[in-house]
Amino acid sequence: MARQERAIRTRRAILEAAGAVFDEHGYTTTTIAMVLERAEVTKGALYFHFSSKESLAQAVLDEQVPFGAVPSQPCKLQEIIDMTFVVGMRLLSNSLLRGSVRLAVDQAVPSGIDFAEPFRQWAGRLTELMEEARAQGELLPTVRPRDTVELLVGAFTGIQLMSRALTGRADLAERLSVLWTHMLPSIAVPGLLPALDSGADRGARILAGADTPVAT
Amino acid sequence: MARQERAIRTRRAILEAAGAVFDEHGYTTTTIAMVLERAEVTKGALYFHFSSKESLAQAVLDEQVPFGAVPSQPCKLQEIIDMTFVVGMRLLSNSLLRGSVRLAVDQAVPSGIDFAEPFRQWAGRLTELMEEARAQGELLPTVRPRDTVELLVGAFTGIQLMSRALTGRADLAERLSVLWTHMLPSIAVPGLLPALDSGADRGARILAGADTPVAT
Repeated sequence: MARQERAIRTRRAILEAAGAVFDEHGYTTTTIAMVLERAEVTKGALYFHFSSKESLAQAVLDEQVPFGAVPSQPCKLQEIIDMTFVVGMRLLSNSLLRGSVRLAVDQAVPSGIDFAEPFRQWAGRLTELMEEARAQGELLPTVRPRDTVELLVGAFTGIQLMSRALTGRADLAERLSVLWTHMLPSIAVPGLLPALDSGADRGARILAGADTPVAT
Repeated sequence: MARQERAIRTRRAILEAAGAVFDEHGYTTTTIAMVLERAEVTKGALYFHFSSKESLAQAVLDEQVPFGAVPSQPCKLQEIIDMTFVVGMRLLSNSLLRGSVRLAVDQAVPSGIDFAEPFRQWAGRLTELMEEARAQGELLPTVRPRDTVELLVGAFTGIQLMSRALTGRADLAERLSVLWTHMLPSIAVPGLLPALDSGADRGARILAGADTPVAT
């Protein structure tokens, strides 16, 4: 294995360990020693990649939005719906994502870290898709893409928190389906509504077929 | 001042101090000593009312839902809208409420505290109002009151978090107005929509006239 490839794998192992520890303990209580123990790497290897707990937390926060990757869809509103369900599914299985979400939700402590950065990144990514949806005639003329996507990001954040608190996120997909049922009639042109899929099993179906293009 | 009245005032002063400290530091970092210093009461007085940090946190959590008190409205959907705007306003001015919301959002640490209790209490209170709204013919026949109110509680939780992270909650009322604009067409019968007030200044107007009944 080439040196660079090994470094990339080590960095990823450290990030995944850090995500798991941040997820379980939150920012304040987490220590570098706890991450070291979980990652099973040397102190030297960790400090080669991350100079401090702050830089580790920032890197974990920066990993969040890539978890929203989904197969491209001809209908961009469907692609936005898909992102929410896929992130919901990945929250169940991936502790790096969970740790990143917990950091974004933890109140900012005095530090150089921008805990709010994932909110901005999600809003930016989703606004691009929403503008494409608008260009394709998918949206009602009353929709202001930035307002709608910031509402989506905020609502998703709270819904996953409430689902975690009440059921350990077991009912998250159901709750996301309820969110879309309430919001879509205010977003999509009426003719598109019957074609949009916001069933609670949407995320599972996308991930099951994730290696092949999704037909619509 | 009668002995009992003095005890009630002392208890309230301790709760308000505890709310402020939980709001600033979160559950894990907060200590009884920090609350004592803020409340300016004796250790004996604090322990007379609260035997531990856990019981203090539980009492702060239990204070959350009363902050949703609003003047009764003939239209129960308007009363639900009003609760969200009034809680949004009170989050700006009341540190006991802020501390209670932060505790509900903090990930549960191993303890005897039920951090999720406010979610259940809000959902219970709002479901009562939503059932009244249904009985008065205010809701679309597709609405399932429990689903809708749990969506509201989850969405509110995340929207206030995102607003705090991005603007110190300065734009919370605007964000709540966007939430209602998106959700009301899926909840209310069409004839009611023009009469419902979900403008961003709704909370300020209710609180300005809080001592007199609100006419509609």
